[in-house]
Amino acid sequence: MTTEDREAIGQAQIRALIDLRVQAVRAKDIDGAMATVAPDVLSFDVVNPLQSIGSSAIRKRLEEWFSSFKGLIGHEIRDLKIYVGDGVAFSHGLNHVIGTTLDGKNVDMWWRSTVCYRKIEGEWMITHEHNSVPFDVESGRASLDLKP
Amino acid sequence: MTTEDREAIGQAQIRALIDLRVQAVRAKDIDGAMATVAPDVLSFDVVNPLQSIGSSAIRKRLEEWFSSFKGLIGHEIRDLKIYVGDGVAFSHGLNHVIGTTLDGKNVDMWWRSTVCYRKIEGEWMITHEHNSVPFDVESGRASLDLKP
Repeated sequence: MTTEDREAIGQAQIRALIDLRVQAVRAKDIDGAMATVAPDVLSFDVVNPLQSIGSSAIRKRLEEWFSSFKGLIGHEIRDLKIYVGDGVAFSHGLNHVIGTTLDGKNVDMWWRSTVCYRKIEGEWMITHEHNSVPFDVESGRASLDLKP
Repeated sequence: MTTEDREAIGQAQIRALIDLRVQAVRAKDIDGAMATVAPDVLSFDVVNPLQSIGSSAIRKRLEEWFSSFKGLIGHEIRDLKIYVGDGVAFSHGLNHVIGTTLDGKNVDMWWRSTVCYRKIEGEWMITHEHNSVPFDVESGRASLDLKP
């Protein structure tokens, strides 16, 4: 298999992984969203703390986050780019979520997401994830209402 | 060359690139800090905006940031991990900066950094960089005083 073949296959595999995860978020399907997350994943999340180690921290956050929404979640990724090497890959994009919280507040938020993958026992797994919003220097507040 | 050889060489190359960049930040050496940044880098920075495209945006930010410090900058990266594939690599770690601003304020701050590299014309270049702090859900404020 040539490097080009391997890259094309890797691209398709990572894209499928991301598509399934987007669908899992929309459906608030925790197991679906966690299926491709490595047990020892290192996560930099949008909210505190500074970092989390292990998939159980991400699962707990997703459970809290999913259950804060009334009904399903609108979710898309814009400007998604995927780069695949031999056993190592990364993707980045702007993640968008739209929904209504249990207390009736409308959520319409964009954040930056960088996801890093490694092939473990023949399967692509998310071993690192970095999600964030920037902050405004003047106010010191997180910028939750930026649009691309 | 075996996959293991290639990975070991790639690891050493990326580590050297990171070391030179750390030294450049300490010395407030703009050209040194920018030497391995690809012209079309996509950057998610600690502060607004949501994203920047192109190395000139990073250079401008670094110039402003470096010139806000009195004297040299104390800088280290903790928990640095590097993963290298064939032409694609990523690293992540906790970046620390210590210094004194021009108006005499002490800075002692940690942030999360994920850096993604691609080999372009035989050289490893930074094609994507994601730097951030998380925010506190209760206050909506960026968490600038977290320690690992």
